[in-house]
Amino acid sequence: MNELLREFNEGKPRALARAISQCESGEGAPLIAALYARTGNAVTVGLTGPPGVGKSTLSAGLVRKARALAKRVGVVSVDPSSPFSHGALLGDRIRLSEHFTDPNVFIRSMASRGHIGGLAGATADAVLLMDAFGFDLVLIETVGAGQNEVEIAELAQTTIVALQPGSGDSVQALKAGIMEIADIFVVNKADHPMAQQLYREIRSMMQILEYSGWVPELLMTQAIEGVGVGELWNAIQRHAAYLNESGEIGRRRKEAFAHQVRQIAAGRIGGLLDRAIATDSGDGDPYAAAARALQTLGVAE
Amino acid sequence: MNELLREFNEGKPRALARAISQCESGEGAPLIAALYARTGNAVTVGLTGPPGVGKSTLSAGLVRKARALAKRVGVVSVDPSSPFSHGALLGDRIRLSEHFTDPNVFIRSMASRGHIGGLAGATADAVLLMDAFGFDLVLIETVGAGQNEVEIAELAQTTIVALQPGSGDSVQALKAGIMEIADIFVVNKADHPMAQQLYREIRSMMQILEYSGWVPELLMTQAIEGVGVGELWNAIQRHAAYLNESGEIGRRRKEAFAHQVRQIAAGRIGGLLDRAIATDSGDGDPYAAAARALQTLGVAE
Repeated sequence: MNELLREFNEGKPRALARAISQCESGEGAPLIAALYARTGNAVTVGLTGPPGVGKSTLSAGLVRKARALAKRVGVVSVDPSSPFSHGALLGDRIRLSEHFTDPNVFIRSMASRGHIGGLAGATADAVLLMDAFGFDLVLIETVGAGQNEVEIAELAQTTIVALQPGSGDSVQALKAGIMEIADIFVVNKADHPMAQQLYREIRSMMQILEYSGWVPELLMTQAIEGVGVGELWNAIQRHAAYLNESGEIGRRRKEAFAHQVRQIAAGRIGGLLDRAIATDSGDGDPYAAAARALQTLGVAE
Repeated sequence: MNELLREFNEGKPRALARAISQCESGEGAPLIAALYARTGNAVTVGLTGPPGVGKSTLSAGLVRKARALAKRVGVVSVDPSSPFSHGALLGDRIRLSEHFTDPNVFIRSMASRGHIGGLAGATADAVLLMDAFGFDLVLIETVGAGQNEVEIAELAQTTIVALQPGSGDSVQALKAGIMEIADIFVVNKADHPMAQQLYREIRSMMQILEYSGWVPELLMTQAIEGVGVGELWNAIQRHAAYLNESGEIGRRRKEAFAHQVRQIAAGRIGGLLDRAIATDSGDGDPYAAAARALQTLGVAE
């Protein structure tokens, strides 16, 4: 591990890659312990939205913008892939390929394993590692549908929710509770005939919610042409300024910390719980069996 | 509780409604303990698919079919609503409204609270209660996107995955791992120009997977016109027969039991964990804090 830490501290991307892999295989604790003091400097931005909305294109646009400003960028692309096959399709990453040879851009696909919490615990580790590695911006990109996007809001200081016109997204967004997590709304594919309508619907929904403090920004983009990406970048900066000036950043970091602690602890308990259940008699009803499992774990209720 | 159990045993729907509410508020354990011995008779069918695919219309069709055969039906509609507002939109239930006055059909919307596991633990309780109440068929309907549909497969003996043409569903289905959970595939909106193409894509994907035992059935429906619903009903019966003849039903029930035990135990631990984290010093890195939280819970690693 010392060798790995040395290379990590020298800024070698392969050390970052190996460190993330180590976290993915559940061996990240000593690395995070060693590097945690160096975290807290990156701007962390979550980007979520339904499949096909253009998240990868938006990410690519933000990465390009960041590079034009000489910022170093890490991208974590979380793939809600099969909990059975553990495979991740890499198709979406292709749009980021122009940055594959840029040493100041590091892109990592991770599978959310369908375990407790949705987003892999290793995602939070990867964000910490990219932060400690010295990236100015860490983008976390995930398909949003139910659970993942709530996780992303816990993890990132700024959450962008991208929606697409003509897909019934707005109503679904409300249903899935993503109205509440968005710091910035993006209507992508602004050239779509229904774009204005979606924009107005989101605007109306926002009026129903009572925001205290930050009121989400609502932007239109056409990411594939780069239209609106500069404005999106500026909105991220405005939100970062708000977080810092209001002191909200401290609360968000504390929440992100607690969230990760919970994920780690729940993951460890989950393994013990599975073992307790597998060796249980299976007698009686599920509540009785659950009580026995808790007893096996040593948890006093 | 005795009063409630008496009314439940007399078959009063309001007792079932109250019992489910009690489970939703986390007070279901004594009820489930008292009624568990009467479960295990219902055919449990999960129906999942992306928003807008027509799940409620398919449900309504299956309910109609069941009623024509004088079967009693319970429907649990799980709404992946906001973990913040805890509200559930009822829009989708409107399509089931023709059955609202039929005492042999019981429809319940439940919110999946964004808690551990996605589908509310109370969903499993509701299925058990409907089973104990004497329903022949319990339909569990949920928006599928990442986590929920895996949960549904744990809960139901037969899982129907509905996909819609022209939406890129097939690739997303593969990504989200729902290929593996489907016992029956339904291409709904069979009149759509892309329906045949989606059918062929699913067929091709199925050829890649190596099935042992049951090979998923692939059907086309046009639920809004009732087209194909009879065939879907027959497919459910064929799968039920397969489960019984192969003895697979026992394995599925055991898994469903273990799954619910895990959810109950994880839910209880989750509460204790939150408390431990909230009162923690927050020192050091997340792994150190997680180790302290486990110690507080009494869990020996």
